[in-house]
Amino acid sequence: MASKTMEKAKEILRQQRYYDSVQGLMGWDLWEGLSAKGQPYRSEVSGFFTRQALDQLKAPETAKIVAELEEMGDGDFEDLYQRGMAKELCRRYAMATRAPADLQVELRNYTGKAQLAWRDALEANSFEQYKPWIAGLFELKKRMAEAIDPNKPAFDVLCDTVDQGIDTAEAARLFAGLKAGVVEILNQIRDRHAAIDVSVLDTEYTHQQRRDMAFEINMLTGFDDKCAHDSQVLHGMCTGVGPRDCRIAISYKGCWGGVFTMLHEGGHARYGYNSNDQAVENGLWGGLGGAMHEGQARFYENIIGKSPEFWGLAYPVVQKYFPHLKNVPMEKFYMALMQVKPSLHRITADELTYSLHPIIRFEMEKDWFDGKTKTDDFEEIWRAKYQETFGLTPKDAREGALQDIHWASGHVGYFQSYTLGNLYGGQLLHAIKKTLPDFDGLIAKGEFAPINQWLYDNVHQYGRAMTPKEVLEKATGEVLTEQYFLDYLREKYLVKLK
Amino acid sequence: MASKTMEKAKEILRQQRYYDSVQGLMGWDLWEGLSAKGQPYRSEVSGFFTRQALDQLKAPETAKIVAELEEMGDGDFEDLYQRGMAKELCRRYAMATRAPADLQVELRNYTGKAQLAWRDALEANSFEQYKPWIAGLFELKKRMAEAIDPNKPAFDVLCDTVDQGIDTAEAARLFAGLKAGVVEILNQIRDRHAAIDVSVLDTEYTHQQRRDMAFEINMLTGFDDKCAHDSQVLHGMCTGVGPRDCRIAISYKGCWGGVFTMLHEGGHARYGYNSNDQAVENGLWGGLGGAMHEGQARFYENIIGKSPEFWGLAYPVVQKYFPHLKNVPMEKFYMALMQVKPSLHRITADELTYSLHPIIRFEMEKDWFDGKTKTDDFEEIWRAKYQETFGLTPKDAREGALQDIHWASGHVGYFQSYTLGNLYGGQLLHAIKKTLPDFDGLIAKGEFAPINQWLYDNVHQYGRAMTPKEVLEKATGEVLTEQYFLDYLREKYLVKLK
Repeated sequence: MASKTMEKAKEILRQQRYYDSVQGLMGWDLWEGLSAKGQPYRSEVSGFFTRQALDQLKAPETAKIVAELEEMGDGDFEDLYQRGMAKELCRRYAMATRAPADLQVELRNYTGKAQLAWRDALEANSFEQYKPWIAGLFELKKRMAEAIDPNKPAFDVLCDTVDQGIDTAEAARLFAGLKAGVVEILNQIRDRHAAIDVSVLDTEYTHQQRRDMAFEINMLTGFDDKCAHDSQVLHGMCTGVGPRDCRIAISYKGCWGGVFTMLHEGGHARYGYNSNDQAVENGLWGGLGGAMHEGQARFYENIIGKSPEFWGLAYPVVQKYFPHLKNVPMEKFYMALMQVKPSLHRITADELTYSLHPIIRFEMEKDWFDGKTKTDDFEEIWRAKYQETFGLTPKDAREGALQDIHWASGHVGYFQSYTLGNLYGGQLLHAIKKTLPDFDGLIAKGEFAPINQWLYDNVHQYGRAMTPKEVLEKATGEVLTEQYFLDYLREKYLVKLK
Repeated sequence: MASKTMEKAKEILRQQRYYDSVQGLMGWDLWEGLSAKGQPYRSEVSGFFTRQALDQLKAPETAKIVAELEEMGDGDFEDLYQRGMAKELCRRYAMATRAPADLQVELRNYTGKAQLAWRDALEANSFEQYKPWIAGLFELKKRMAEAIDPNKPAFDVLCDTVDQGIDTAEAARLFAGLKAGVVEILNQIRDRHAAIDVSVLDTEYTHQQRRDMAFEINMLTGFDDKCAHDSQVLHGMCTGVGPRDCRIAISYKGCWGGVFTMLHEGGHARYGYNSNDQAVENGLWGGLGGAMHEGQARFYENIIGKSPEFWGLAYPVVQKYFPHLKNVPMEKFYMALMQVKPSLHRITADELTYSLHPIIRFEMEKDWFDGKTKTDDFEEIWRAKYQETFGLTPKDAREGALQDIHWASGHVGYFQSYTLGNLYGGQLLHAIKKTLPDFDGLIAKGEFAPINQWLYDNVHQYGRAMTPKEVLEKATGEVLTEQYFLDYLREKYLVKLK
């Protein structure tokens, strides 16, 4: 009886993931192939499949199975995958039955159009042009949150859809501790870093040259390109289309930034394609959304990808693609790349100050949901926040509130993930070093297998079988803290790069 | 009552097209984005949606509606779009209810894998490696044909799924007349063309350079690139993903061939995106499959794209991308491009001898279905046919039976479309010239609007609302004949290029 319920539940979840896959493919295709005039019909198609997936969840058969699953305790499940599958299905059922289908379709169609509107507003450098879209989007997300759980603050509900089980008050506390620590480091190194000569980074390049270099550098880390397709579009991204099928894109901008975007999206892809067979079988492939995913991305981008040891391997590749750097010492180039310099742009921010950027968005979102602000004022609020945090003011919309695609794509309640992801990364690093004390040495030798294996064993393979909290505590033996990431930053900026 | 039936029928067909769209997108993505290890799961996803679409067709509600539609006569329909919608739904219903779902899923999955096997066999230059795939494919297609209509010869059934209403015996008669005419022209010009100096075509090029040139030349014809995305993959193709959303690809091979592939696939795309709003509304977008589609593609590729008038426009673009041609006269370059020379390769064949290549495949397929041959012997049969038709023998599998992707992608009973498409093109040209006697002059002046409009008015806009025979006879006032195409070839090779 229980086994028959489980089989049915598994089948439903697997089919739900098929719907995810076509939506993922259509989402990626928005950037990679969809024609300008193809958009309205695409919304119809996407809306149709959104409804089909919801209809399946809302069918009486699913309700019956979910009711049975909800009666079960942990002891009733064969293994953690079965338990994860059951919980994932119950979670989806709750979302589907609480949020009206019309609203879900409306939101999906809206984000499809809003992303293109964002692109146009960015081209026009006009926040004014973006205003109606962002206003509509925040309202839609609020209505969605209220439908999902009218008894919790809407912002908490949205953050929970991204970072399952998140406590936003706890996140705010972690952020306060992190910010204080970052500012303390920054004050000690600011002048020294301001003096770094970065002219060595200036170069001409072609898209192809930059892509090939970034690809080759990413491959150094033992990346499996048979599980991921890469391309170049307006905005770096990673989309999981299937259990062994990720699409990564680097943006067209910036030569060296492309390397770090590739490593970042490659980290997402790695977590995306590394679910084990049991996780795949149970419809739990692709990894946990939010901070855990960002944590993997930022681990490869920064903790590995911005280490001096890694640049011992990467720099010869750079020199191959840019022969004019043959006579530039690695240290000079690397220090230029590592320059810490408070800036206006999140994606290109240095590793130290990066964490403060998503905190600004997180605070802006929180204030809006608390009824303190209007989206029409976001450009001004943004300017004020940047002035307060970094002492810098954006000169236009492109430098300011238009720089991220996230709100247009419906990612409200998402930004905390980046900064939390950094904290996850620092905590995982601390744990890895217990098993692999010569972590830095392994990177220097290009021996990524044991590092990749540790992350696979402790995080990647489980897919969505456990909650983020469960995965973190199983992997590191501790609840989340900002201290390990701060330790890592202090070690890097105050000792290694001294 | 009738109106309610019509509304329901329309809704079902529209939804069937949504399924077509995701299958189209997944099909295109096979080449454009799918990771190597993503294939097995992709088969699951594609199979799931194949079944969903079939389930909808086989549902009792659909059966009831189809039964009502089948009772109706032409006078019961409001317009030709409603009639076309009803007929299209009945046709799909018949296919769905006759061909077992398992077989349809098996065929779809098989072709997904067989195309990659074809790619690998092509790389390995081994027909041996391809043998099991092609054998399995022909058997599957035969089973499918027998399921669809056990009372008709299997090959006729397959050809009818491509060229609706085709009479294969009539096609064979048209081909015999065409072949005789082509050989007669060939005999008159063979020696003269053998003497043409084609060394002017030799050049180095990059993929980007070639793509940009081909794109710009295609745009000369008034192509709407807001309805089509272009890329470069292993094999030229066009996939209609939505009513205003086509994907065209040129292959990586050959510099000047890329121009003609772009014009060819652009012709497909144009027919694909040009359905009028009523056709779209009724789920009839994208154009008629088979010969009518190939006819549009080959019209733009050849009748327009290989005319001396068009090269007056195209050659300056070529010279822009290849400045070393600045001092080469257009006539010299054009005549080199136009050289008629019997060859082993269909896609790169000259316009005159091209038609004979698909006829070889058509005959091979027909003989197999008549039980006269085995697919294991196709490499040998191919060699013998080329020897007989052109006096040439392929030196390896790449030059021979591995050159086309079609059988691997399930296109058995398709090749006749190319040659029939040429006949459609010739007949349409004859009809256009009654309205636009200065057809050649319009091209020379780059005035494509009236030509595009004529094709839109008489062919493109209707989508699938009528049968190919109905469209042709409405547009030209005559049944299909090979004579107009032969007239065109004679005029071109014996008069204009004399």
